[in-house]
Amino acid sequence: QGTRDHPPAQAALRERLLGAVVSCFKRHGAAAIDTPVLELRETLMGKYGEDTKLIYELQDQGGELLALRYDLTVPFARYLAMNKVNNMKRYHVAKVYRRDNPATTRGRYREFYQCDFDIAGQFDPMIPDAECLKIVHEILSDLQLGDFVIKVNDRRILNGVFAVCGVPENKFITACSTVDKLDKVPWEEVRSEMVGEKGLSPEVADRIGEYVQLHGGLDLIERLLQDPKLSQNKLAKEGLGDMKLLFEYLTLFGITGKISFDLSLARGLDYYTGVIFEAVLLQQENEHVEELVGVGSVAGGGRYDGLVGMFDPKGRKVPCVGVSIGIERIFSILEQRLEASGEKLRTTETQVLVATPQKHLLAARLKLISELWDAGIKAEMLYKKDPKLLKQLQYCEDTGIPLAAIVGEQELADGVVKLRDVSTREEVRM
Amino acid sequence: QGTRDHPPAQAALRERLLGAVVSCFKRHGAAAIDTPVLELRETLMGKYGEDTKLIYELQDQGGELLALRYDLTVPFARYLAMNKVNNMKRYHVAKVYRRDNPATTRGRYREFYQCDFDIAGQFDPMIPDAECLKIVHEILSDLQLGDFVIKVNDRRILNGVFAVCGVPENKFITACSTVDKLDKVPWEEVRSEMVGEKGLSPEVADRIGEYVQLHGGLDLIERLLQDPKLSQNKLAKEGLGDMKLLFEYLTLFGITGKISFDLSLARGLDYYTGVIFEAVLLQQENEHVEELVGVGSVAGGGRYDGLVGMFDPKGRKVPCVGVSIGIERIFSILEQRLEASGEKLRTTETQVLVATPQKHLLAARLKLISELWDAGIKAEMLYKKDPKLLKQLQYCEDTGIPLAAIVGEQELADGVVKLRDVSTREEVRM
Repeated sequence: QGTRDHPPAQAALRERLLGAVVSCFKRHGAAAIDTPVLELRETLMGKYGEDTKLIYELQDQGGELLALRYDLTVPFARYLAMNKVNNMKRYHVAKVYRRDNPATTRGRYREFYQCDFDIAGQFDPMIPDAECLKIVHEILSDLQLGDFVIKVNDRRILNGVFAVCGVPENKFITACSTVDKLDKVPWEEVRSEMVGEKGLSPEVADRIGEYVQLHGGLDLIERLLQDPKLSQNKLAKEGLGDMKLLFEYLTLFGITGKISFDLSLARGLDYYTGVIFEAVLLQQENEHVEELVGVGSVAGGGRYDGLVGMFDPKGRKVPCVGVSIGIERIFSILEQRLEASGEKLRTTETQVLVATPQKHLLAARLKLISELWDAGIKAEMLYKKDPKLLKQLQYCEDTGIPLAAIVGEQELADGVVKLRDVSTREEVRM
Repeated sequence: QGTRDHPPAQAALRERLLGAVVSCFKRHGAAAIDTPVLELRETLMGKYGEDTKLIYELQDQGGELLALRYDLTVPFARYLAMNKVNNMKRYHVAKVYRRDNPATTRGRYREFYQCDFDIAGQFDPMIPDAECLKIVHEILSDLQLGDFVIKVNDRRILNGVFAVCGVPENKFITACSTVDKLDKVPWEEVRSEMVGEKGLSPEVADRIGEYVQLHGGLDLIERLLQDPKLSQNKLAKEGLGDMKLLFEYLTLFGITGKISFDLSLARGLDYYTGVIFEAVLLQQENEHVEELVGVGSVAGGGRYDGLVGMFDPKGRKVPCVGVSIGIERIFSILEQRLEASGEKLRTTETQVLVATPQKHLLAARLKLISELWDAGIKAEMLYKKDPKLLKQLQYCEDTGIPLAAIVGEQELADGVVKLRDVSTREEVRM
């Protein structure tokens, strides 16, 4: 339940999609690493907040207690700590596992691919962070998924907001997860959760509401930097200063048109410490595809400066920032778009079918195809001793093979091959 | 234990190796499929003989009872049955899991890649089987792993041998697994296991010994077809007839020089029903690399005509034959060879580093690199506001970046970029 086989047509589409993502990661100079699907249970515990219950655990069959990885970020941090790596730009495309309620029509599975790009190391502020946003922008533009916006916020700004609004510090995380719902429900509901379930006073909630419903650009950052309360909070001031720098860099990249500084963005995971971001596709009226798959987050990430230190025996810190591309949702969209277009994706790359028009010519086919393979040409033949020529040509049409290399008795006698263009039916002897 | 991280240098080598294998599979017209790492426990039970104990099981956290896949063959058969597919040529490159005793220096892990190519469908005898052997031959030749031999046998011939030697039918499988050890221990030891542990009479064992120590080519097949006892056994006769046909096809492919019909080859798995084969690298005297990693099987496979039927509610059969490339052992060999050569594999593909020779030029770098990325050029820059030029050029040399695009105050004023060839130090303004 919640997993699936990929038949050839899906596997081919996925290969194309992953290819586009990986080529962007490589364009930005990332190296690949690979880590095991299995991690020690203790490595994963305490990293995912409430979602820890969604981790798949392996049975205790003697030996270590194991679990399936939940994301690629924690294994990356574990890798950096274990190998004492201080800086690295890496990508990792692999499957992760979550015992979630699957919603397969919206592209939510229990086994799914993640495509992660991360930059680890002590660098000047916001330069790697800006590159992560540039990457999201490049990938979403390349894939032509329609209009999108990348929401950006900073955990320090959020925490500053909570502080100046009078939220007690031990309620920051829970307040965060309530704010995070603002992309799905209206403020009134969020407010009543704060007051009802989370035990904040109505005044505190109202003060939070004044901030977290704000979104904008550089102008909003400037305004908040002048905000009498917020500008007094050290964390918020730091976060806003960095946000301003980030927008400067994004302006140089020419991508601020798609960026929104959005104070309601909180993101669920515990490990973020600075900038956070999330890309969402914008609803397009009357577009069948979007309706079917729902519109939601297709990429997200942020800065996590404390995670590596959790795995280092000496607590050595390695600042990190990274992005994860939500490939499954994108895949669902592209798949439905392909279906709607009626286009048929080839599932093989075969260039030529080796065929014979008469009986008793299997040996000739085997000899010719062997020569083609040895020359690096992608070639197939039917696995029948004496297939009909029509069947062989039909196979070409069904599977999109462009050429047929035909050897009959005459061709054998003349020492030639007849090469046929399957679509035009033109033939040349060679 | 028994798993590992792949740092960038290993990941790059692995990408190269898997690329070579996949390109051979595609050359033979195979389509890709993907199946989940998780399978239902019941799917895997009763397929792997004694090795069933090596299956990783997931904890019962409610819901289905799951296990990690043990190989790619059983999931493929399950896929064919579930989707009622009658014929398909597919490849699958993915990780599998075995709770085995790891022997990591010899390339044996608990998590490892398999590269499988299989042909499913009802076809004329031995044509797909011959193609599988051709594929092994192509891959081992392409990778230049040194001399190798592909041992071939047929389960029907082995069972025929057991029958005519007087082994009771219920001991065929256990006799099979004893014979399989002949590649590691001398006949005397195999014989004493047969008599001692497996309870065969010395006479029966001796009769088996006369057959299973034979190996050769077409001549041996002909001789056994004339063998007064074996020729009376229906299974053996069928197997020998097909073996003769196989050698005919392999002759047309021009690869019989590396093929040995070897009656001691048995292979452990329960599901084989016809041709079986295994490729081994031959020991090369005085070659350091081979000594380190040990010489052993680097590819294997065979025909399994009954497996799909085990998953079909109506027992519908789909004959299959396939090959699995033992990528981990090959990887160990290539890795040690690379190490011995001192060659350094690049882990990134970056074409150009964007650099500045003076301070306060971060904006110029960000603008230029953004243009390069948007033009599809693989570009990096250092994440420092004011890095020293020497440091930037050093980074190119360390990571193998061939070009540096330098923008200084003069270049900015002139509206040009200075492009520097890192190795020759030649520069052009453009």
